[in-house]
Amino acid sequence: MKYSPSIEQLIKSLQVLPGVGPRSAQRMAFHLLERKRKDGLQLAASISNAMDVIGHCKVCRNFAEEELCPICQSPKRMSKGAICVVETPADVAAIEQTAQFFGSYFVLMGHLSPLDGIGPGELHLDKLEQRFAQEEVAELILATNPTVEGEATAYYIADMAKRYQIKVSRIAHGVPLGGELDSVDGTTLSHSLIGRQQLD
Amino acid sequence: MKYSPSIEQLIKSLQVLPGVGPRSAQRMAFHLLERKRKDGLQLAASISNAMDVIGHCKVCRNFAEEELCPICQSPKRMSKGAICVVETPADVAAIEQTAQFFGSYFVLMGHLSPLDGIGPGELHLDKLEQRFAQEEVAELILATNPTVEGEATAYYIADMAKRYQIKVSRIAHGVPLGGELDSVDGTTLSHSLIGRQQLD
Repeated sequence: MKYSPSIEQLIKSLQVLPGVGPRSAQRMAFHLLERKRKDGLQLAASISNAMDVIGHCKVCRNFAEEELCPICQSPKRMSKGAICVVETPADVAAIEQTAQFFGSYFVLMGHLSPLDGIGPGELHLDKLEQRFAQEEVAELILATNPTVEGEATAYYIADMAKRYQIKVSRIAHGVPLGGELDSVDGTTLSHSLIGRQQLD
Repeated sequence: MKYSPSIEQLIKSLQVLPGVGPRSAQRMAFHLLERKRKDGLQLAASISNAMDVIGHCKVCRNFAEEELCPICQSPKRMSKGAICVVETPADVAAIEQTAQFFGSYFVLMGHLSPLDGIGPGELHLDKLEQRFAQEEVAELILATNPTVEGEATAYYIADMAKRYQIKVSRIAHGVPLGGELDSVDGTTLSHSLIGRQQLD
């Protein structure tokens, strides 16, 4: 295909976005060029600004442009004494949307995966341990993904917390609301049986 | 949700891309921030560069960063004397991929749509007419979309070309290859009957 070099470059660059292949990249490029030049410039500015200024919160390791993220800046959130451990910033967003958790977070930015060279150091677990030592932690909620690596990471952190006599819990796994027992896999179903709760 | 302002801004800006809603925008933003900072900066540069330098080819109105697009710059392509009229630059890319057309293009950047205020002037049809007058046009191939507006645009341009005694053709409409007669709509099927070709 014979595009101008700048368009070729744009189409190639857009494919760095997740889920964007050559065809959607081409559609995006033409959409911007045809109708959204001003928004395109704005998008370019937003991306380069974010890449430059976003770092990690010193306390919870979530993305933040200041030293502390908005949640760790809030004394109301920090004073609850509950820490929820999640794998990614997207998980923080998902839990915030439930409006059921009012404590602070610790974002691992991944999970333990020795084969990929990701150990406790890469997840900055020393910073979490530091929080165990310095803060009054009333409860540690482990909300890593229910995958092999997520479970292993949860157990590792639970062990660490027990050394500080901290109460540790794991989010419940079971049949999702609106789901049908019939269509849920066996492992999830056994989890939901093992984790059954008594009705008052 | 409590993101940092720069992340909020990035997620909002990404939604200018076609087919990108709040959720995929968030996924894209986190993907760039977590793993692709350098590529992100490169993407920002590509976008702002393209928005700045890409204009329209003086001859065919396709996107070009110089005065002429690569196709109009090629004497081999221009000398064929065939002009293919398409609605968008993406259509040029699609036809180029077939490697069946060796002439030049004229890109309308839309179609006639009086209700939206898009008339011959907005499509720069005067530039096409100028080419009829100045170039040796052996054949004009109308490859606008087979929609009501595309057909109307094709007829309008055909009328214009006839005034210059130019041979005009319309791309064939019919059953797509690999398709099944059964699953093709009635209008397409009648087109494929009307446009039937004798086997030698």
